[in-house]
Amino acid sequence: MSRNDELKARAEAVIPGGMYGHMSTYRMLPEGYPQYFERADGCRLWDVDGNEYIDFMCSYGPMIAGYANPRVRAAADAQRNQIDIANAPAAVIVDLAEKMMSQISHAEWAIFAKNGNDATTACNMIARGRTGKRKILVAQGAYHGSQPWAARRTKGTPDEDYVHFPTYTFNDIESVTQAVAQASGDLAGIVVSAFRHDAGFHQELTDPDFARAVRALCDKEDAALILDDVRAGMRLSLDASWSEFGVQPDLSAWGKAIANGEPIAAVLGSEPWREAASKTFMTGSFWYQAAPMAASLETLAILNEENAPARLEALGQRFRDGIYEQAQRHGHSVLQSGPAAMPTLMFEDDKDSRLGFAFCQAALKEGVYLHPWHNMFLSLAHSEADIDQALEGTDRAFGTL
Amino acid sequence: MSRNDELKARAEAVIPGGMYGHMSTYRMLPEGYPQYFERADGCRLWDVDGNEYIDFMCSYGPMIAGYANPRVRAAADAQRNQIDIANAPAAVIVDLAEKMMSQISHAEWAIFAKNGNDATTACNMIARGRTGKRKILVAQGAYHGSQPWAARRTKGTPDEDYVHFPTYTFNDIESVTQAVAQASGDLAGIVVSAFRHDAGFHQELTDPDFARAVRALCDKEDAALILDDVRAGMRLSLDASWSEFGVQPDLSAWGKAIANGEPIAAVLGSEPWREAASKTFMTGSFWYQAAPMAASLETLAILNEENAPARLEALGQRFRDGIYEQAQRHGHSVLQSGPAAMPTLMFEDDKDSRLGFAFCQAALKEGVYLHPWHNMFLSLAHSEADIDQALEGTDRAFGTL
Repeated sequence: MSRNDELKARAEAVIPGGMYGHMSTYRMLPEGYPQYFERADGCRLWDVDGNEYIDFMCSYGPMIAGYANPRVRAAADAQRNQIDIANAPAAVIVDLAEKMMSQISHAEWAIFAKNGNDATTACNMIARGRTGKRKILVAQGAYHGSQPWAARRTKGTPDEDYVHFPTYTFNDIESVTQAVAQASGDLAGIVVSAFRHDAGFHQELTDPDFARAVRALCDKEDAALILDDVRAGMRLSLDASWSEFGVQPDLSAWGKAIANGEPIAAVLGSEPWREAASKTFMTGSFWYQAAPMAASLETLAILNEENAPARLEALGQRFRDGIYEQAQRHGHSVLQSGPAAMPTLMFEDDKDSRLGFAFCQAALKEGVYLHPWHNMFLSLAHSEADIDQALEGTDRAFGTL
Repeated sequence: MSRNDELKARAEAVIPGGMYGHMSTYRMLPEGYPQYFERADGCRLWDVDGNEYIDFMCSYGPMIAGYANPRVRAAADAQRNQIDIANAPAAVIVDLAEKMMSQISHAEWAIFAKNGNDATTACNMIARGRTGKRKILVAQGAYHGSQPWAARRTKGTPDEDYVHFPTYTFNDIESVTQAVAQASGDLAGIVVSAFRHDAGFHQELTDPDFARAVRALCDKEDAALILDDVRAGMRLSLDASWSEFGVQPDLSAWGKAIANGEPIAAVLGSEPWREAASKTFMTGSFWYQAAPMAASLETLAILNEENAPARLEALGQRFRDGIYEQAQRHGHSVLQSGPAAMPTLMFEDDKDSRLGFAFCQAALKEGVYLHPWHNMFLSLAHSEADIDQALEGTDRAFGTL
């Protein structure tokens, strides 16, 4: 019995369904994907049976500067050696807030939390607190965390939990305009993702006209434009992700990559929303933990030094070009969607995902960890040589189909 | 200008209201309390101006085995050296789940998260998922996290968010019986705290008859008894806190002290709730982080080795006895409430907290960090000598009143 199977057998007794959430291979991934990992370094993972993988998931986003990045680890350790938790925060919270203000155009204040979903929920609370209105528009199918309002998939959630979260269709100006009209007078905010990155679907880049329309609607209705930059933040831009369209949110939610895997999330906001933020009670036992803040400062320094978004895009494009050429050569029609830095790779005419599953399983055996229906992630720890080595594996994987 | 004031001035520009949540000295504590700390070791904290304190807040609960506990730190570091985050968890998640099963009587499965509020919310989701019913009873004034349902103090929260969270009065069998009767047929669960530890009030130990009545009501209604053991967990008992009354919850929420300050929370449940838990999508980017799990395993080992609850009670009683004697001698009437391991110290006839504030400020100047209106916490890092040294400080503090 493999060590992975041994652990799975033990876990089935003590963890519901063997594993929960997005890291459950039972519900999320084809047979053969390891449920447990033992070592992580740079862009590589080793499972508990010693198999090595070039990783294209980056822990579903938190890793951006390499697993076990020595600079980030040293910064976190130096902070831990002084102080991590206490009855009040350490000075690093001010340093980090100032750093985010200097880097993120719309941000004039910051609050730090743990989960991305803490941040998206806090944005709603602040939007409602300032406006005194109730409706928060959310894009149909979007994911903003696993709390009921944010995932809309919890069995047993009362209807009332959704009544003030009407939906619209992302990238559809008419749809969001209609949803705003219906909520008019009671609209506290509109939540948007950096782009349409719904898992299980081909990804859609944001239409700049849609972004500008949402901004205009929020202005007209005195509602908050809430940008959920948890998944895409720091990967597409060192500013908020809609900055490239000249569109600034009022409130933005961050998490995942901002500390290279140390647990921290952030709510950033512009001046008009500061007072409401100061009057909204938001907190958590570990939200003031200093080590992840020190890790975040160092991570942001690295991302700036290396101009991460351009680098990740180049790496992703190299991977994407290679896959395209291989698919052509092997006679497969692949649909690569989303930004190159967060590439999604699915097959055409593959509604039951059979082809995607088989391809990813074959790649996995070649030491390449891909995802068949979720966007993937590049990191600064990936080199051109890593990409090329991965492409050798995917070439062989295509050959098995 | 002190370094604390310098940091406060900078923070006022970048953090709403200067600081958020329960670690804001602005809204929570009298003048003179430091907003920033620089070093933590054992039961002592040093603020950014070099002042040393014997700490009776333990970071509001997470610290239980001493700041910078070398064993816990070594366990976390050893895990970090191997792997912390990845695309799936490390083996330690299974070890930790098994350890909690062996230690907590009612627990037959575990799910790990980050915030205590993640765990309390998850309990609600699971209770509703299994029962198909909607109402979750919550004690009036209780705190289960800062999400709107859990704190009930967020300005702008729509009424609908509370409609399925009717309230009852803790320790009042008639009140909870009436609330259950009103929700009958639609009752998914009753949330209880380990004891009545509402901040700002004298604390109330749980009446064993109340505990048994709640258990009987849940059984009768096929609803979940949900124990929020986030704040008290591991301090009153090494089992779930109501075990001493022979009352077991169906679902319990844990956080704070279970990893001595490394960020982790847990949902524990009994067998009948496993299937619903397995079908409830709950997750977060950092919920699978391995280092806090390794820290938790080591923390639990220490708590068991040292029989933490008995030790914390003895330390707390020593402190309480000393305070009582001093108050008598100085002619003050203090009301010490709650369990000795989590003591609350307020003055009689002190509705505006003026006396409590003055006393705590004076104690602070003597190097003793107390809280005027929140329960405090003892830890294994407090020695009898620390308690006695703190009591010398409080004696002088009483003298200033």
